[in-house]
Amino acid sequence: MALFSKVGIVGTGLIGGSLGLAIKQKKLADDIVGTSRRPGTLRNALAMGAINTGSRTVDILAGCDLVILATPVQTILDQMVRIKHVIPKNCIVIDVASTKEMVVHKANKTFSRFVGCHPLAGSQNCGIDFARPDMFKGALCVITPVATTDRRALLKIKKLWKALGSKVSILDPETHDKVLGFMSHLPHIMAFSLMACVPGKYLKYTPQSFFDITRISASSPDLWDDIFITNRKNLINAIDTFTLYLTRMRATLKKNDTKTLTRLMSAAQQKRLRLL
Amino acid sequence: MALFSKVGIVGTGLIGGSLGLAIKQKKLADDIVGTSRRPGTLRNALAMGAINTGSRTVDILAGCDLVILATPVQTILDQMVRIKHVIPKNCIVIDVASTKEMVVHKANKTFSRFVGCHPLAGSQNCGIDFARPDMFKGALCVITPVATTDRRALLKIKKLWKALGSKVSILDPETHDKVLGFMSHLPHIMAFSLMACVPGKYLKYTPQSFFDITRISASSPDLWDDIFITNRKNLINAIDTFTLYLTRMRATLKKNDTKTLTRLMSAAQQKRLRLL
Repeated sequence: MALFSKVGIVGTGLIGGSLGLAIKQKKLADDIVGTSRRPGTLRNALAMGAINTGSRTVDILAGCDLVILATPVQTILDQMVRIKHVIPKNCIVIDVASTKEMVVHKANKTFSRFVGCHPLAGSQNCGIDFARPDMFKGALCVITPVATTDRRALLKIKKLWKALGSKVSILDPETHDKVLGFMSHLPHIMAFSLMACVPGKYLKYTPQSFFDITRISASSPDLWDDIFITNRKNLINAIDTFTLYLTRMRATLKKNDTKTLTRLMSAAQQKRLRLL
Repeated sequence: MALFSKVGIVGTGLIGGSLGLAIKQKKLADDIVGTSRRPGTLRNALAMGAINTGSRTVDILAGCDLVILATPVQTILDQMVRIKHVIPKNCIVIDVASTKEMVVHKANKTFSRFVGCHPLAGSQNCGIDFARPDMFKGALCVITPVATTDRRALLKIKKLWKALGSKVSILDPETHDKVLGFMSHLPHIMAFSLMACVPGKYLKYTPQSFFDITRISASSPDLWDDIFITNRKNLINAIDTFTLYLTRMRATLKKNDTKTLTRLMSAAQQKRLRLL
């Protein structure tokens, strides 16, 4: 028997579409339906087999036992009430947003069985065209329950991510947003800033290092504006911490203090080597 | 007939060793010798076939018609006079250092036929163990001649890099250092600072974006200290320009000004998409 009978995906883009493909491949649902505001996205999701039926309205979610909110954060916040009126009371609802505090806070007041999720997957490319069934294989999925989270729903959602090949980690929403402010949102705003500050005529001298470090500045500005703004407090803190370290390195350059500069770099290098 | 009869490589590390392998593979020299202060490096360079004969002293460079300076910048500056006394007067000398102003300035006073070169190749890994003959294939090599550069030597060195599969671009040493300050040294000091500022306990939540953006912080601190310090003026300027842009983005977050934030990000994204 499949884990779910009818799964509804709200927002069949890169992550939503990949979830549809992966759930279908692993036979975790009897039926998968999806919604998107864009007819072209729905057409592609249907053609790729990410969903069996698509609709531009949330009415299609009636009878679901799992609904996945996979639109940008602010859209998730806007859609909740409308979705609540369509789905059965005992339907499990999850989201896959990159910031969790605002979503989890509102969702816990809206749905009786909500579980916040953040799969650390994706790329600079967005949209259904880049969706793939193995997107979550080997990835980490951070689940962000709170005290009132339905325990059986939580267990079932852990099972879902594990079935998709993900490792599961638990964090409360506030800690999640602090951690991801440093580990994801800071790198993105750095990459956007670096790309913005470099004179255009220098781009013909692009070493691999520059190419790689700016990869994520090709990401969607709308999507990342949404993430940055819904985590602004933590992101500003991360920017300030980073600036402190960069300023410290700058000061050693100014003073020609190679000893301190090498020491700061060695500490960073040692930390990075632990990641390999 | 080979392009050179005896090539001497000073510093048989990642770049020097790769040059030895590539020159041998393309049959561009009758003989290749090398020096390194580390016996282990020499042993590996010999075993890998990057050089035919190795020595810890520069005496081995006697009779060379091409000498390649492939040690860190400050070491290149220190070695020049000793090398000058060993090699024939008409020997072409090139370097492959990442900063050019200091090296080119001193080398032009020391050698009669010097051509400054900077192949934009390499990785976070250093040392002969990572050397490979195709290191320069498809890479850009920036050559930095000055008014007094021997024209025949310059032509021959262009020919060398093209034979190794590189595209060649010409910049004066000052412009080179300005451009690379932004395109290479700034990304590296950003990566070191990011890696340094992130709390160690956050590292278990590493998304692909953080992993990729910090790759180059695994680079050798000694090597990069050398590069940063010999280009400090330009690097400080690049840091200040970057900080200005990051601060501007931070200000939009502070004010919840999504319109300006999205505009700044879109400009960066459009610029990055031109690189693809």
